[in-house]
Amino acid sequence: MSDDNLSKQIGFLVEIDKLKTVFRRTYVLGTDRHENDAEHSWHLALMALVLCEYANKEVDVSHVLKMVLLHDIVEIYAGDTFCYDIEGNEGKAEREKQAAQKLYSLLPAVQKNDFIVIWEEFEKGETTESRFAQSLDRLMPLLHNYYSEGRAWREHGITRQQVLQRNAHIADGSWELWKFAQELINDSVEKGYLLP
Amino acid sequence: MSDDNLSKQIGFLVEIDKLKTVFRRTYVLGTDRHENDAEHSWHLALMALVLCEYANKEVDVSHVLKMVLLHDIVEIYAGDTFCYDIEGNEGKAEREKQAAQKLYSLLPAVQKNDFIVIWEEFEKGETTESRFAQSLDRLMPLLHNYYSEGRAWREHGITRQQVLQRNAHIADGSWELWKFAQELINDSVEKGYLLP
Repeated sequence: MSDDNLSKQIGFLVEIDKLKTVFRRTYVLGTDRHENDAEHSWHLALMALVLCEYANKEVDVSHVLKMVLLHDIVEIYAGDTFCYDIEGNEGKAEREKQAAQKLYSLLPAVQKNDFIVIWEEFEKGETTESRFAQSLDRLMPLLHNYYSEGRAWREHGITRQQVLQRNAHIADGSWELWKFAQELINDSVEKGYLLP
Repeated sequence: MSDDNLSKQIGFLVEIDKLKTVFRRTYVLGTDRHENDAEHSWHLALMALVLCEYANKEVDVSHVLKMVLLHDIVEIYAGDTFCYDIEGNEGKAEREKQAAQKLYSLLPAVQKNDFIVIWEEFEKGETTESRFAQSLDRLMPLLHNYYSEGRAWREHGITRQQVLQRNAHIADGSWELWKFAQELINDSVEKGYLLP
């Protein structure tokens, strides 16, 4: 590729530094600060490496890695939407689609297309890899809530029913992880981390 | 794997949340806060995806991803050592080796061994993939310094010679990126971001 392409790629890498300033509702364990999207994406990638054996069907883990590393970048322009915020989730898909166009257009054309294809695969959740990647993206906040005594759940008055409904899709990627998640949810109610 | 293995794996994933609290000397662009190791690792993984075409020899990008995602985890126990801190770098290898044993022992035995092999490959820098991964790990702070007007360099009184010496290894992974890095370094001196 030409020097012009390298300039574009460096420009993209500098721009996505902003993902470190997009904050989620979950807390970094043992701290009083919210987790940001960049560190969340790293944590999901590690989760993919560690838990890939639990996918319902064998997955190409490197493809799962690419999806989880890229999945939240659109939030640099579209913002993070709390998953239990019904109003905020209206129009989210359109906002993120526009954000993806704007952001990935910083890259050379071939790479832009490659990355958008990977991101869209994640969003649609129709392949084995994207189903598993989505399962991890849902399981991770359960872990963060459980190990912070339900902090984000309690702050937003979330109930067991909401969490079960939101996370049932974990089963599409991994029955075993969904079984584990349900145990975590039930235990959270027992411990008072989550409203019954 | 048994449920016991899943418990271990979840324990590991919860423990490595701490990487989000290990801070580096570089700043998140446009902010007054230091970057942490987790978000840095995510950023490196994206850099690997975007710039893999510039490796001196063709690389297995998924292997590069695994290395950069895992490379800093030992710092949870061993701490981040500033690359220009000569005293701090004495004994660093031994500290990190012990940290790797402690941390990866949280995982089932097979996975522990797999992850230590990947981490050691990165540290040794003898393969095409590890040389390229190390190049990215050196290039990234140059970008952060350049785009924050040399903030971390100026705070620590770093000179052009130190930066050139520290980063010449970029060429082992990518001649093209080393050429780019040198331009960045020279321009940094001209702009007053870096001492001559």
